[in-house]
Amino acid sequence: MAVDHTRFLTDLHTLRSFGASGVGKGVIRPAYSKADIAARQWLAARMAEAGLTPHVDPVGNLFGLADGPSLLMGSHSDSQPEGGWLDGALGVIAALEIARSSDRPISVVSFQDEEGRFGVTTGSAVWSGGLSLEQADVLIDGSGVTFGSARAEMAKKSQGFVDPVRFSGFIEMHIEQGPALDAAGEQIGVVTDIVGIRDMVITFQGQQNHAGTTPMHLRRDAFQALSLFNTRLNDRFRNVVMPQTVWTIGRVDVHPNASSIVPGRVRFSMQWRDGDPERLVRMEDIIRATAQQIAEEQGVTLTYGPMLGLEPVSMDPVLRGALESGAQAIAPGRWRNMPSGALHDATNVSRLMPVAMLFVPSIDGISHDFAEDTAEEDLVAGLRVLDRAVHSLEE
Amino acid sequence: MAVDHTRFLTDLHTLRSFGASGVGKGVIRPAYSKADIAARQWLAARMAEAGLTPHVDPVGNLFGLADGPSLLMGSHSDSQPEGGWLDGALGVIAALEIARSSDRPISVVSFQDEEGRFGVTTGSAVWSGGLSLEQADVLIDGSGVTFGSARAEMAKKSQGFVDPVRFSGFIEMHIEQGPALDAAGEQIGVVTDIVGIRDMVITFQGQQNHAGTTPMHLRRDAFQALSLFNTRLNDRFRNVVMPQTVWTIGRVDVHPNASSIVPGRVRFSMQWRDGDPERLVRMEDIIRATAQQIAEEQGVTLTYGPMLGLEPVSMDPVLRGALESGAQAIAPGRWRNMPSGALHDATNVSRLMPVAMLFVPSIDGISHDFAEDTAEEDLVAGLRVLDRAVHSLEE
Repeated sequence: MAVDHTRFLTDLHTLRSFGASGVGKGVIRPAYSKADIAARQWLAARMAEAGLTPHVDPVGNLFGLADGPSLLMGSHSDSQPEGGWLDGALGVIAALEIARSSDRPISVVSFQDEEGRFGVTTGSAVWSGGLSLEQADVLIDGSGVTFGSARAEMAKKSQGFVDPVRFSGFIEMHIEQGPALDAAGEQIGVVTDIVGIRDMVITFQGQQNHAGTTPMHLRRDAFQALSLFNTRLNDRFRNVVMPQTVWTIGRVDVHPNASSIVPGRVRFSMQWRDGDPERLVRMEDIIRATAQQIAEEQGVTLTYGPMLGLEPVSMDPVLRGALESGAQAIAPGRWRNMPSGALHDATNVSRLMPVAMLFVPSIDGISHDFAEDTAEEDLVAGLRVLDRAVHSLEE
Repeated sequence: MAVDHTRFLTDLHTLRSFGASGVGKGVIRPAYSKADIAARQWLAARMAEAGLTPHVDPVGNLFGLADGPSLLMGSHSDSQPEGGWLDGALGVIAALEIARSSDRPISVVSFQDEEGRFGVTTGSAVWSGGLSLEQADVLIDGSGVTFGSARAEMAKKSQGFVDPVRFSGFIEMHIEQGPALDAAGEQIGVVTDIVGIRDMVITFQGQQNHAGTTPMHLRRDAFQALSLFNTRLNDRFRNVVMPQTVWTIGRVDVHPNASSIVPGRVRFSMQWRDGDPERLVRMEDIIRATAQQIAEEQGVTLTYGPMLGLEPVSMDPVLRGALESGAQAIAPGRWRNMPSGALHDATNVSRLMPVAMLFVPSIDGISHDFAEDTAEEDLVAGLRVLDRAVHSLEE
C-alpha cells in the first residue's frame, strides 16, 4: 500500500487543532496540559485504527506497538508554551502514515515532555535510562508543579515501560529548526550526528563603585571583564571552530545593575556545541584559559558553576544510508548531510538502539514560535523519503 | 570665639545615633524616615541653641537662619538605605560649628532627599527652581510611595520656602567619596567644578534564535552587538578623554536571557561625566556614531531613550580662593584642586548664588556603604579650613 499524502496532511492539520493558538498555525500544547492529553487520546485512536496496540507508559510516552519485532518511528506531540504546529508533531504523524502503509512492522511513538516543561527531553530520557524516575519526579516546572504530580493521572492508566528489545532501530523525522535547508532551497537533510553540548555559568567578581568618583584606571568593572573575555574568546576560537560550531553567551546578570554604579559582579552563561567531542574539549580549554587571563589582567575573581555536558551522538550508518538513498531518489540535488544543532529524543534513544534522523526545511529558520512553518511539498517529500528508506531496509 | 573640635566631633557622633545601623559607624536614615525626622528635630534644637532660627520648608529642607544677610553653609542629613555616617552629615555639623563660633552671620542648611529616595538631590532641586513642586510630588520611591505623600507631614509644619536673596553664597563641605585624596595621603580637596553628566538608555534589537541551530554567520546577536560597541567605544575615547573623564555601562538587560537562546535584545545604560561641556558633546557624538556603525555592521536596530543631562558647574572664584587660602594655611603640601565627580546639593544651589565645595578624604574611597569613614584629624582639618575661609571672607 502506498503512502497517502492527503491522509498524512489531513492528520497533521487535525493534530494542530488540539491547543490551536488562533495565531497562524501555532499551538499551545505543553506536556500534560488538557490539549496535550486530548491530542494523545486522539493519536491512540488513530494508532488503533492502523492496527497498532496503543500503550501509555508511566511517564506518558504513547506507543503504538506492532506485533512482534519492529522498527520504531516517531517523535513527540507536546509543544513549547508558544509553539509551532510541526515541531515533533510532524515526526509522529509521518510515522503513523508509514505504519499504516508499510508492509513491514512499524511501531510509532510520541514521547512526552520533549520540550522540557520539567527537564530536557524528559519522557525519552526516563525510558532510555538516562534519568531515573526518582530524579524525574522531583523536577519542577515554572509554576512549581512537580513532574511526579503532573504524570500521576497518566501513570494510573499506564501499562508499564515498553521493553526496547522489541525494536530494531529508531528513525525520527523533524523540522530543521534552523535556516540551512531553507536558505539553500533544499528539501531534505540527512542527519550525520546530533551535536554535543557544554553549558556552564561563569562569574567575574570585581569591585562595585560610584560611577562618578571612581577613576577609570582604578576600576575593577565586572562588565568590562565580560566584554573583554567575549572579544578575546571570539578571536581565539577562529582557529579552532568549524562552520557548524556554535557558541553563545545567552544569559547575562549584572550586579547591582544601576546606571550610576560600576558593576561589581557579572554572572553569565557560556554554551558551546559541536559534533566532535575533541573540539568540545579544546574549546573548554580555551574558555578557561581566556577567563583566567582576563581575571588576572582585570583584577577580578573568577568562579565556575557546574558544567552540563552531553556527548555528540552519531547516527547509525545503515539507517542513515537508507535515508540517504531515499533522499537521492526523491530530491536529487536538493538534499544534504548535516549535523543537528538541536537536541532531540533520538539522542536519548541512541542508548537503546541504532537511531537516524531526517530533516525538512523550516521557513526562514523559525521554530519555537507560532510562525513556524514548512511548505507542504517539503513535508510530503520528507514522508516519501521515509517511505523509500523503510522499503530499502526491508530488502 | 574659636571652633571647638571636641564639640564638632561629639555632635557628629550624636547625629549618627539617629538610624545607627549597628554595623561599624553606618547609618540607615533615608529621607522622611523616622530616623531622618528625629535627626532633623535634634538638629533644629542645636540650631536654636546656636542662636539661629530653625525653619522647615514645604519639602523638608531644614534651615537655621541667622538674622539679616548671611553666608549659607551645610549639606544634607538624609542617608542612603545603607549609608555612611559622614556623607552629608559632615557638611551639616561643620556648618553648625562654624555658625556657633564665627563672628560673621552664618546660616546652616540640611537639604532633604539628597540621596535620591525619590529623585536626584530632590530637596535642593525644588528650592533652587530646577524641579517644580508639581513635578516632584509625583516622583515615586522603590516601594511606590509618592514624594507628595512622604513630605505631607513636614509640609504641615512648614513656614514656606526661604527667600534665597538673604544669602550671599553657599559653601558645602563633603567627603570625597572617591580614592584620590586618600591614595595621595592628602587632607583637603578644593573643588574646581562639579562635573556634568549625561545618561541614556540604548537598545540594540537583533533576532532571538535557537542557540543550537542558528549558525554563527547568520546570527544577529544583540549581546555581541553590545560587546563590540563597548570595545570600539573604549578605543575611540582614548584620544578624547582626560584622566578625570569617566564613562560607565552599569545596567545591562538581556532578552530573553536564557542560555540556549541567542539574545534578541539588549537594553543598557550609557553614562559619561566630565567637567568640560564641549567634551561631553564630543563623547555623545562618538557614542552615537559608534552605535550607529555597530547597528549597521551587525544587522541590529538601534533606539535611544531620553538623555538626562546636567551641565558642569564651576565654583565661584572668590569663595574657592578663600578655601584655597585656608587649605594652604592648615594643610600646606597636603591639599589639591580637584573636580567633583559626584553630584551635590551645591549643583542646584549654584542657580541661586555663588557656591564652593571642600573635600576631605574617604578612607579607601569607600562611600554609600556602612564602612565609609575618614580619620578624625582629617575631619578637624576640614573644619579648620572652613573656619579660616570664613574669616578671610570677612576681611
